[in-house]
Amino acid sequence: MHELTTRRQVEFSDTDLGGIVHFSRFFVFMETAEDEFLRALGGSFVFTHEGRSGGWPKVEASCQYLSPARYGDLLEVHLEVRKVTRSTVTYDIVFSRGETVVARGKTTSVCCAVRPDGGFESIAIPAPLAGRLRPAPG
Amino acid sequence: MHELTTRRQVEFSDTDLGGIVHFSRFFVFMETAEDEFLRALGGSFVFTHEGRSGGWPKVEASCQYLSPARYGDLLEVHLEVRKVTRSTVTYDIVFSRGETVVARGKTTSVCCAVRPDGGFESIAIPAPLAGRLRPAPG
Amino acid sequence: MHELTTRRQVEFSDTDLGGIVHFSRFFVFMETAEDEFLRALGGSFVFTHEGRSGGWPKVEASCQYLSPARYGDLLEVHLEVRKVTRSTVTYDIVFSRGETVVARGKTTSVCCAVRPDGGFESIAIPAPLAGRLRPAPG
Amino acid sequence: MHELTTRRQVEFSDTDLGGIVHFSRFFVFMETAEDEFLRALGGSFVFTHEGRSGGWPKVEASCQYLSPARYGDLLEVHLEVRKVTRSTVTYDIVFSRGETVVARGKTTSVCCAVRPDGGFESIAIPAPLAGRLRPAPG
Repeated sequence: MHELTTRRQVEFSDTDLGGIVHFSRFFVFMETAEDEFLRALGGSFVFTHEGRSGGWPKVEASCQYLSPARYGDLLEVHLEVRKVTRSTVTYDIVFSRGETVVARGKTTSVCCAVRPDGGFESIAIPAPLAGRLRPAPG
Repeated sequence: MHELTTRRQVEFSDTDLGGIVHFSRFFVFMETAEDEFLRALGGSFVFTHEGRSGGWPKVEASCQYLSPARYGDLLEVHLEVRKVTRSTVTYDIVFSRGETVVARGKTTSVCCAVRPDGGFESIAIPAPLAGRLRPAPG
Repeated sequence: MHELTTRRQVEFSDTDLGGIVHFSRFFVFMETAEDEFLRALGGSFVFTHEGRSGGWPKVEASCQYLSPARYGDLLEVHLEVRKVTRSTVTYDIVFSRGETVVARGKTTSVCCAVRPDGGFESIAIPAPLAGRLRPAPG
Repeated sequence: MHELTTRRQVEFSDTDLGGIVHFSRFFVFMETAEDEFLRALGGSFVFTHEGRSGGWPKVEASCQYLSPARYGDLLEVHLEVRKVTRSTVTYDIVFSRGETVVARGKTTSVCCAVRPDGGFESIAIPAPLAGRLRPAPG
């Protein structure tokens, strides 16, 4: 599986005094799409790996803002897997409203186990999830 | 003026169940540093330009996460102006805790006036603010 | 109409380091239910009234937290209109997960028009919305 | 100790499209004041108690909104301990801007230890913190 299309309704609290969605909210929208994608593959942001807690902290995140999104907008969110390594997954996420591209985001998450001291340690993406993650063609 | 150093205390609500600052919060931290910088230059995220409301919506934002930040951390935030064009300013923002670099962010904001239809229109950065914005050397 | 039942999936970013939904997020969840209710009645948090912008700022909000909600929970959200006055609506909102009541909230919003100076002025709830708002029995 | 006065600068991201601080943000502001108060007493939202993790989840929270707060406002935040029981502390928090009272909030937090199953169990507020918490007179 290499993509997911979902939707996101802009809420009143997503906006700022400029009357548009605050730019930081798109990163939450991206994460929620990633979450939905992981669940569709049988994964989760929270898991147990060899007796330790595991998670997917972000390594990198970016977004280009092309057209303002506003309260009440129903955004189409299209996520594609761009790259998979032993421990990381990079996603491209495009937000659109009808024909208008609103924003283009990218995030990279790293599969980690929590060490006894509370720190994170990257681990190989556990099977069978690893076997189901496929980069989008092109 | 081309830089600003400020501080940010991590709040309980900045964290997520992974026990670290949620990645989206760094974008808010960046914006607050940008705000403080603009104010130090006599500017603001909210202004009036030739009778119209003006603002600084983001064009692009990105962040690399190098080391987790946690509740109670007092982060040093160092902002530098990377690039200035007629309408835009690009900032590099480095978050650190002691000797440890926690995250490196970059944002580009565009100076805009609000059109009567509510849309944004990029404008030249008004004087005297434009005259005070200097890219950091190097 | 006097009630609405909807659902809310807890997102990763709704949680804090305690592993539960941050208490402030329930107020956002309440507002989103109120929004959905207003829309079902043909209203909106944003409207125009006699040529002025209008909205529904909060007068009061409260919440009792009875059982923690966690990442991935699908909460049932039941909203009831408790009281309607000339300008205000008070809602009771109950969050539950299966048989467990997670939280009980209450908010009061006041119907306002924006004055030329930017301030808010309470106004009578416009028809036909006013005619459709009914307090729940009991 | 029974009170604390601190300040909070309204950030751009605290606002919504109505041009005012979103009502949910005041609950974050309250929590940050509570945090500062606990720290002043030698406590913290995160602690260890008899080998278990501990925290202060909210039992109840409410706020009355009396006057809008806006971007750039520097709010004075006055917290008072209203009530202390074996496990809980109730705070009154008043937000003001100059002579204007902006909002009046109240929160009750319960001192908890985390059970092995991840649930919370209320515990007696540990000494010496318990000995330092005093309800405000009147």
